[in-house]
Amino acid sequence: MSVMNHQTTVLLQQYKQIRGFSKKIVSPLEIEDYVIQAIPDVSPPKWHLAHTTWFFETFILVPYLEGFKRFNDTYDYLFNSYYETHGRPYPRHARGLLARPSVNEIFQYRDYVDEQMTSLLERCDAETYDQIQPLLEIGMQHEQQHQELLVTDIKYNFSINPLKPVYQHPVSTVKTAVPTLEWVRFDEGIVETGHSDDGFSFDNERPIHKSWLDRFALANRPVTNGEYISFMENGGYEKPEYWLSEGWSIVKEEQWKAPLYWEQKDGEWYSFTLSGVQKVVEDELVTHISFYEADAFARWAGYRLPTEMEWEHAMKNQRIEGNFADQGHYHPTAEYSEENNQMMKTFGDVWEWTSSPYVPYPKSKPLEGTLGEYNAKFMCNQMVLRGGSCATHSTHMRLTYRNFFHPDKRWQFSGLRLAKDL
Amino acid sequence: MSVMNHQTTVLLQQYKQIRGFSKKIVSPLEIEDYVIQAIPDVSPPKWHLAHTTWFFETFILVPYLEGFKRFNDTYDYLFNSYYETHGRPYPRHARGLLARPSVNEIFQYRDYVDEQMTSLLERCDAETYDQIQPLLEIGMQHEQQHQELLVTDIKYNFSINPLKPVYQHPVSTVKTAVPTLEWVRFDEGIVETGHSDDGFSFDNERPIHKSWLDRFALANRPVTNGEYISFMENGGYEKPEYWLSEGWSIVKEEQWKAPLYWEQKDGEWYSFTLSGVQKVVEDELVTHISFYEADAFARWAGYRLPTEMEWEHAMKNQRIEGNFADQGHYHPTAEYSEENNQMMKTFGDVWEWTSSPYVPYPKSKPLEGTLGEYNAKFMCNQMVLRGGSCATHSTHMRLTYRNFFHPDKRWQFSGLRLAKDL
Amino acid sequence: MSVMNHQTTVLLQQYKQIRGFSKKIVSPLEIEDYVIQAIPDVSPPKWHLAHTTWFFETFILVPYLEGFKRFNDTYDYLFNSYYETHGRPYPRHARGLLARPSVNEIFQYRDYVDEQMTSLLERCDAETYDQIQPLLEIGMQHEQQHQELLVTDIKYNFSINPLKPVYQHPVSTVKTAVPTLEWVRFDEGIVETGHSDDGFSFDNERPIHKSWLDRFALANRPVTNGEYISFMENGGYEKPEYWLSEGWSIVKEEQWKAPLYWEQKDGEWYSFTLSGVQKVVEDELVTHISFYEADAFARWAGYRLPTEMEWEHAMKNQRIEGNFADQGHYHPTAEYSEENNQMMKTFGDVWEWTSSPYVPYPKSKPLEGTLGEYNAKFMCNQMVLRGGSCATHSTHMRLTYRNFFHPDKRWQFSGLRLAKDL
Amino acid sequence: MSVMNHQTTVLLQQYKQIRGFSKKIVSPLEIEDYVIQAIPDVSPPKWHLAHTTWFFETFILVPYLEGFKRFNDTYDYLFNSYYETHGRPYPRHARGLLARPSVNEIFQYRDYVDEQMTSLLERCDAETYDQIQPLLEIGMQHEQQHQELLVTDIKYNFSINPLKPVYQHPVSTVKTAVPTLEWVRFDEGIVETGHSDDGFSFDNERPIHKSWLDRFALANRPVTNGEYISFMENGGYEKPEYWLSEGWSIVKEEQWKAPLYWEQKDGEWYSFTLSGVQKVVEDELVTHISFYEADAFARWAGYRLPTEMEWEHAMKNQRIEGNFADQGHYHPTAEYSEENNQMMKTFGDVWEWTSSPYVPYPKSKPLEGTLGEYNAKFMCNQMVLRGGSCATHSTHMRLTYRNFFHPDKRWQFSGLRLAKDL
Repeated sequence: MSVMNHQTTVLLQQYKQIRGFSKKIVSPLEIEDYVIQAIPDVSPPKWHLAHTTWFFETFILVPYLEGFKRFNDTYDYLFNSYYETHGRPYPRHARGLLARPSVNEIFQYRDYVDEQMTSLLERCDAETYDQIQPLLEIGMQHEQQHQELLVTDIKYNFSINPLKPVYQHPVSTVKTAVPTLEWVRFDEGIVETGHSDDGFSFDNERPIHKSWLDRFALANRPVTNGEYISFMENGGYEKPEYWLSEGWSIVKEEQWKAPLYWEQKDGEWYSFTLSGVQKVVEDELVTHISFYEADAFARWAGYRLPTEMEWEHAMKNQRIEGNFADQGHYHPTAEYSEENNQMMKTFGDVWEWTSSPYVPYPKSKPLEGTLGEYNAKFMCNQMVLRGGSCATHSTHMRLTYRNFFHPDKRWQFSGLRLAKDL
Repeated sequence: MSVMNHQTTVLLQQYKQIRGFSKKIVSPLEIEDYVIQAIPDVSPPKWHLAHTTWFFETFILVPYLEGFKRFNDTYDYLFNSYYETHGRPYPRHARGLLARPSVNEIFQYRDYVDEQMTSLLERCDAETYDQIQPLLEIGMQHEQQHQELLVTDIKYNFSINPLKPVYQHPVSTVKTAVPTLEWVRFDEGIVETGHSDDGFSFDNERPIHKSWLDRFALANRPVTNGEYISFMENGGYEKPEYWLSEGWSIVKEEQWKAPLYWEQKDGEWYSFTLSGVQKVVEDELVTHISFYEADAFARWAGYRLPTEMEWEHAMKNQRIEGNFADQGHYHPTAEYSEENNQMMKTFGDVWEWTSSPYVPYPKSKPLEGTLGEYNAKFMCNQMVLRGGSCATHSTHMRLTYRNFFHPDKRWQFSGLRLAKDL
Repeated sequence: MSVMNHQTTVLLQQYKQIRGFSKKIVSPLEIEDYVIQAIPDVSPPKWHLAHTTWFFETFILVPYLEGFKRFNDTYDYLFNSYYETHGRPYPRHARGLLARPSVNEIFQYRDYVDEQMTSLLERCDAETYDQIQPLLEIGMQHEQQHQELLVTDIKYNFSINPLKPVYQHPVSTVKTAVPTLEWVRFDEGIVETGHSDDGFSFDNERPIHKSWLDRFALANRPVTNGEYISFMENGGYEKPEYWLSEGWSIVKEEQWKAPLYWEQKDGEWYSFTLSGVQKVVEDELVTHISFYEADAFARWAGYRLPTEMEWEHAMKNQRIEGNFADQGHYHPTAEYSEENNQMMKTFGDVWEWTSSPYVPYPKSKPLEGTLGEYNAKFMCNQMVLRGGSCATHSTHMRLTYRNFFHPDKRWQFSGLRLAKDL
Repeated sequence: MSVMNHQTTVLLQQYKQIRGFSKKIVSPLEIEDYVIQAIPDVSPPKWHLAHTTWFFETFILVPYLEGFKRFNDTYDYLFNSYYETHGRPYPRHARGLLARPSVNEIFQYRDYVDEQMTSLLERCDAETYDQIQPLLEIGMQHEQQHQELLVTDIKYNFSINPLKPVYQHPVSTVKTAVPTLEWVRFDEGIVETGHSDDGFSFDNERPIHKSWLDRFALANRPVTNGEYISFMENGGYEKPEYWLSEGWSIVKEEQWKAPLYWEQKDGEWYSFTLSGVQKVVEDELVTHISFYEADAFARWAGYRLPTEMEWEHAMKNQRIEGNFADQGHYHPTAEYSEENNQMMKTFGDVWEWTSSPYVPYPKSKPLEGTLGEYNAKFMCNQMVLRGGSCATHSTHMRLTYRNFFHPDKRWQFSGLRLAKDL
């Protein structure tokens, strides 16, 4: 017996909103923009749109919708990102070589899957609902993650084009003076971090577990462009003593002299944004820096990065609000509000690199089956970032959320907040 | 005083026909197909359309049309292929990373340049006409060369897509039995080859010059798929004794076992064509082989490749007719006509690899200025091919035409004809 | 006033013993063996002999011995390993391209520095002694680290030679039955790990600090070859579900099917050892595996690797004894002694991969100046190993000792011990 | 019946002299110098010593000396250079990773083969002698080719060492004023070049064959350092118009600004020689330039390189004398003698790049069997050089001798002589 009850209605509505937001992100694009992949790290926008759709098709429709027929069998190869236990995926670095399926076909694919999902949800019985609901949650969170990647990948793809395309007109924002950097202090002791089983969380956020923390202090806000320019002007990129060895190698090889997207003209710093090339605003948070740069900055400043446990403990009572993707700026703002207790810009604006390598929590268990590959297999050589960014949807953020990237990556909206021992 | 005389009218009509044929070639494409570059050797279709336009703009409109304004100044960087004395070109391997300009903008660019060209021709005086005319000839020949590349690049780009897109429906052709291979004999002596100053030729075809040729014989037709399969079945790709050293290295590294685009299923050979995957027809000419493969085949067969002087001397009296791009097959046919003296399939179908490295003719002079870079600077490490292919327009072919590619390249319609000493 | 007191005498004797042990390790080599570098990870033996000498010269003789003249100024460039704040080092990957200085010259260099060191120690006053002594400690520990690398690098260099050179005759060892794997249990609670300021330790082992540990159990011994073969025979190298993503990429790229140095002949496993190719002994500990393999084995077995805090806490009361380099086997043995409490083979035999990324301890401080580059700058993308190996000198080992390598490295004597949650 | 006649005696003596000259070349080396391979193009000196020995062993002793036993079976793998039909060779780029066999063992190997060769020659009957003699000739010529490589490879290996080792003290030479560049003129007509069957020649020099030559002139001497510096000071390395496309790519990638081994200090040019770093002497011939540089120089000068047929025709009456390896300078000299008709420095000093790609002569036949791989399989992508150098033994040189290298190679003693059309 099918149950199109309130719960289902809410879930379906949420599903449609999230699916719709992906479309909204790509709405300013030309068809050509959907195709390219400027570096292996980024994916063509049409690939993101298809892959998220494949996710629902593969993990929900195929196993749970009787008689379901895939939209196109080859898509199961083309749009499998990295699920090796599901089947050999199409090589990542070659996603930008696929002219077909066309953008139009991919939108048809999305429509087809959305219709089938609607149909499944509207007709499924309670038992099936209980099985589907957690998968749907993951699928929606997954689509939100790719929404962030859509934004950062479009930005990267646009940035390397000598024509410097503009994604949207600059959005005017409120600017306030940058508050003085102040230290918020925390006592030593055993703390509990991680996510309970209540509400959605990824497997990598669970379980709640204990850690010992020494006394420490955390800055009341992340580092600004102005502060980062001081580091640069102080020889930050020329002195090996600030850098991890592998970071220093990249600085020399890639001739890094500033964050990604920055360039200097006539003594002024400019950066490429989704609204084209803009003057760097000193009061905005610095972003598009690698872990190596965040770490070097902290060492230069005489401080350090926080661990992810310190960060999560310190931010326990912050409200999830800030400069998120739903506001549509897609860029950090210089608006500082002091109300949110002492801490500012905890969520949104820029992801904050922590000093914590991405490893499993004590007693954590990956999901069973193929979805166990979602997070666990990447727990090596990557660093944790916290807090979300201006490209993260606000409904996607949680205190316990663990983002992770290799320490040399810079195309995400990544910045830093200082910490120190007491 | 402007002279819109008969000569100009004919030239303008020719210009428009050639420009129109480029558009015809791309007409079956989706917008996404215009953007990609599957390997550095190929270029995105939209790049070809823009680059040929840039050629007219740069070498004719800018210097000869007073008050002319470039369509977009950045295009002079983006669509300069390799003219280093004109300015640093945009890197070739990264042509597939340019979403913009859009396909639509590129068609506008073509229209703009076509209008200005028309206007220039319609209004120019006799003196200007005399200066423009040879440049226009080169520009049109240049566009025809890129028409061939459009066909071969589209084929390559399509071939690597697991969805195996189809460019056009298979075109039905007449099939006749393959004539027995016979040897056409030529005496020793001093021969003259190369192009006179009458009519258009590239600088690399000039001047007429003498060579000594020993007695030799040339096969009456190129090698067929059936003959090439014998080579393969005889261990052609497994025995180093047939191969040049650098050819053998590639065979092992790339695991070559057949021509490009071939694959074996259930004991049958198939190849990817512009009409999708098709069974290999034994009576068609073998194509998509490298110089190394052509040379290895000839050694296996106990013969050799002809030099380009032998080829040109032997073909002196052949009519320029055959399976050309204007017929729209874009694939070799199994139709053999014995009328054309003793030689068959001299022109069209497949380019024939010669044993001649691409070097300047005695006393040859490259064009003055930037256009001197057109041919001369590539005279190293490449081999000459003769005769045109099913992707060459018939009006582009000449007896003296020298095509050239690196000896490992296979994405052109390249085959071979055997020669032997007497 | 100079003080050649007892303390100095002891230190000098220790210095000479350690310097002598380096010579002992290389004594079986031909001159040619000193020169080569089979992969960038390893260094030529003569480079190790010179670099350790440069260390004493640079950090002690140059600053503390008045009137000291370097043996050869170019050596300061050639034998600086990675101290960027001291000066640009000669590129690591090119160490095997240096025929000169000759081996003979390098032994002269060692003698020169040893004489000057002796002279300095014999004549220095108490104040200088106090400054020198900690540097000398580091220098000796540093030389001991390079002794281990000498052994592992000689092994690697020999292994790739088709002549399979033999470093020494097989050393006969006692063999006992492998004891059943048993779990030693530990309670939850706050533990203290790390090194106090008493006695020597590297900066990366300090300070003592607290951690919270959940209840856990540790295997009473590391994993054996026999157990590892079960993993292999169970499809260990074929099933992606056991592997971290980057590990799986390497397995496929490098076609790993067994530990480094193993090869199968007629159904039997053999491995290359410093005594040539030998049959794999099932009762010996598995070694020459990467972190990825250790981690995959643990996942296959249903367990996990221990954290370095768990390991250190669990081994707190073990005696530092075992199969060390001073015994000269340079290979794990199958001798198990049950006396050492419950734990066996804690020290010596093989380094044990932990699940802990190599990061700084809370409140740790790198050494001041150039020696701060010794450890701290490598704290990224590497994993901690504990316990020493058959190539470590027993006087070099400590409970708190942290070794670290990238997770894909296999040329060290690295193995694993299982852990589990309770 | 054995015939130790005069012919045999002479041949054996020649064999011993040639074998002895290899030893003389390496006599200044330290053992360490024998081992290294600074780039894949060069080989370790001990490899050359062993490979030339393997050549006699493989092509003469194994087939013709009954009961002969190889010195070491693995050597047949290690010291096979590139004879694929003989068996898979050890990879070329890894020759510098072989510490073993030791230098001492390789000298033993040489002695062993020399003894067996002596024994074979002393005892063989006339029939065997007739079979062996041509192989022995090739073997000796082959050893002489490797003698030249020994010199150039030792030079390269030394050059990259920051200690700048010295192979020998500078040899004092006579210096004369550089004669004015004059043009020697040649008429048009059919010429015959190539080697007859009289006396030794490689298969690539045969047969004598006809070519048509237009009128041309050849410079009376090669280009000097002084002239080359003019090219450099005139922007030779900065202007793309002088360069072949692939040459220009290398100029930019490798940042070429001068010949190999040159560096500028305080406005003066120095070059690394086998006698250490020396001031560039303007009156010596320029050397260590690639074909690309030779070709660019000629274009800058308004002339061209000669074809190999022009060169051979023009030099028909020159005596084989000059600055050869037997004189032991191993460097071009500034001694010009006008006696040798009009042409100077035709042989010795520097190899002269021609404009001729290395291709087979009409009707040429490679040797039968494995030795057919000696020359023929390299006839692609290489350019012919003529005349020998200061590292060639005088007894190795012939008018018809064809040397060949890839156009980007610079570590040989390669220079150029100008030609022009008349």
